[in-house]
Amino acid sequence: MAEKPSRGLADVVAASTALSDIDGRAGRLSYRGYDISQLAGVATFEEIAYLLQRGAPPDRGQLAGYRAELSAGRELGPLAAGSLADIARAQQPMEALRSLVSLGSAGDPDAQSNEPAANLRKAARLTAQQPVLVAAYAAERSGKAVPAADPGLGVAANFLLQITGQPPGPRAAEILDTCLVLHADHTMNASTFAARVCAATLSDMHSAVVAALGTLKGPLHGGANEQVMRGLEAIRAAAGGDPVDAVSDQVATRLRQGEKIMGFGHRVYKVEDPRAAYLRQMSAELGGASGDETFYRMSRRMEEVVLAEKGLYPNVDFYAATVYHYLGIPTDLFTPVFSISRMSGWTAHIIEQHADNRLIRPDSEYIGASDQTWIPLEAR
Amino acid sequence: MAEKPSRGLADVVAASTALSDIDGRAGRLSYRGYDISQLAGVATFEEIAYLLQRGAPPDRGQLAGYRAELSAGRELGPLAAGSLADIARAQQPMEALRSLVSLGSAGDPDAQSNEPAANLRKAARLTAQQPVLVAAYAAERSGKAVPAADPGLGVAANFLLQITGQPPGPRAAEILDTCLVLHADHTMNASTFAARVCAATLSDMHSAVVAALGTLKGPLHGGANEQVMRGLEAIRAAAGGDPVDAVSDQVATRLRQGEKIMGFGHRVYKVEDPRAAYLRQMSAELGGASGDETFYRMSRRMEEVVLAEKGLYPNVDFYAATVYHYLGIPTDLFTPVFSISRMSGWTAHIIEQHADNRLIRPDSEYIGASDQTWIPLEAR
Repeated sequence: MAEKPSRGLADVVAASTALSDIDGRAGRLSYRGYDISQLAGVATFEEIAYLLQRGAPPDRGQLAGYRAELSAGRELGPLAAGSLADIARAQQPMEALRSLVSLGSAGDPDAQSNEPAANLRKAARLTAQQPVLVAAYAAERSGKAVPAADPGLGVAANFLLQITGQPPGPRAAEILDTCLVLHADHTMNASTFAARVCAATLSDMHSAVVAALGTLKGPLHGGANEQVMRGLEAIRAAAGGDPVDAVSDQVATRLRQGEKIMGFGHRVYKVEDPRAAYLRQMSAELGGASGDETFYRMSRRMEEVVLAEKGLYPNVDFYAATVYHYLGIPTDLFTPVFSISRMSGWTAHIIEQHADNRLIRPDSEYIGASDQTWIPLEAR
Repeated sequence: MAEKPSRGLADVVAASTALSDIDGRAGRLSYRGYDISQLAGVATFEEIAYLLQRGAPPDRGQLAGYRAELSAGRELGPLAAGSLADIARAQQPMEALRSLVSLGSAGDPDAQSNEPAANLRKAARLTAQQPVLVAAYAAERSGKAVPAADPGLGVAANFLLQITGQPPGPRAAEILDTCLVLHADHTMNASTFAARVCAATLSDMHSAVVAALGTLKGPLHGGANEQVMRGLEAIRAAAGGDPVDAVSDQVATRLRQGEKIMGFGHRVYKVEDPRAAYLRQMSAELGGASGDETFYRMSRRMEEVVLAEKGLYPNVDFYAATVYHYLGIPTDLFTPVFSISRMSGWTAHIIEQHADNRLIRPDSEYIGASDQTWIPLEAR
């Protein structure tokens, strides 16, 4: 029977999944039973995408085959490629990705099939194309050419090559790779859930990914990492003295005014988000290597103040912001970078939904007026 | 606490809404408290779109203002208009609409704002543009020009003018108008729910509508009306004798094989879908007027067989199929026509979600392996 609504479906189990699991009290996240503490800095993004999409870690031959599939799948379809210039001029990054992936189905021979083999192929192609779309969009709007991908590099290194225009140092590539591993999947987050709601009508993978991209765009979801960086930049720009001290004043004032500080707290984690610890460490390392640790130090201070005042821990978006910044990624592309990683999880969830489908169609509670009498227009 | 999943969220209350209400046992549907039995054949689609989006039936001045807003909002943005020809060549109808609405945000001055006034303006523009997109897509792929909209006609009549190339008879326009009224909103159906999940991250209206369009595309949702017509066409084409008798054999065989017959049964209605009665009547009227009632008579027979064999009633998609067919709408545009109407409900739900928002982020039940040990690639 329908009962009172659980606002936002908090604590309502909406689906079963074998893809990822969160222990919110212990602060643990695992992908198919592998705790991320075993994966961060060890596994590559390609291994994790394979694990999520295909069910088990690849052996060396399987990984080589998957990498070859990603390389072959990188090329954009003609409709998306042909619209890129106009889109880059007219749409913001997440709008553009929503449009480009929607147009991308035109170039995909499996677009209309939900068969398991077709879904696996599309999942690989969508995972291969997402970093290319982000880099091509960025290049197009700044009038530059995208360097050709280097088949000897992985997804993370190729993306850094294409977005910065220069071959990345090995440590930068490793760090982005670890970021992609950490962001790959996260149970029923809003964008993944939107993808599953869409896929559950037996709509196709592109439609479901487009739904996820539009959902990730929101500032309460993927948009948070960009907001974190903009907040740090604004405080630094306005600070008369030490921007680290300015953080304390600013944040305390905003918290007193009841404002939400982006990048803190999470519906599921009651303790620190396990991903945040790795991102904090990488932010420190990159800040130190850059010769300007200011944004890292500001972040640390913000973390201390928010924990002291509100008891909230940083979430995955908080230190991702400065990590991406130090890697040379433009601030308005932070959410698109998140989407490069999460594409692996979205597609895996769509595969899982199609494999054992039921329409997702909840009830609602009606709270409006009842038994109204319609007065024809002439009498109104 | 998280409990066992309710598969597909059946009977789980996911949101409160003042927009529509269903009494599944009594077979009743109301919009803002007005039972559709008061509205069908009486209210116009424009009045219902206004009612849903703006909260109360318009008076004559308000309706005139809203109609003027729709007329002014009909023009497509330059990015969508410029891509139309390429999209019409390369994408199927619902893919094309997903792409075109995504591109459409580029032309909307309010695209990035979730403010109430901006959302109202966008809701009107999206409602105005959807029939134009469908007609322009259809014209483009068949190499015809779209007749200019007639400002003296309403949404339904203008769409028939633009899709058939001829001014519709008054009764045809009235019947399509009634269809649009009947399809305008339907509580937490999958596409509306997808729109709300998206909007609840504080993403924008275009993103949420794009999510809804991709969700409606699935054959378990909007795609059903097209499947109904294709089923009827296939039976008629294959029938040696009377196609009405062929229906009995075909359906009985398919039911014995455990196949699902599209257009029957509904998760929420336990009795007849109240919309189906109006659509049945309109199908009969149009069939009679057309001089070839075959598809109507086949539908009646199918209804009898499925009710006798399975105890299932036709849903809204079943008689909509033949109504659209008799109105001269190409079969692969049936779901797009549904979207013309449902745009009014989607946008109203997005407005409602933004007005009292909470992130929609359910839990999941983990059913995979636990405590796996990651073996580094070299050792695999």
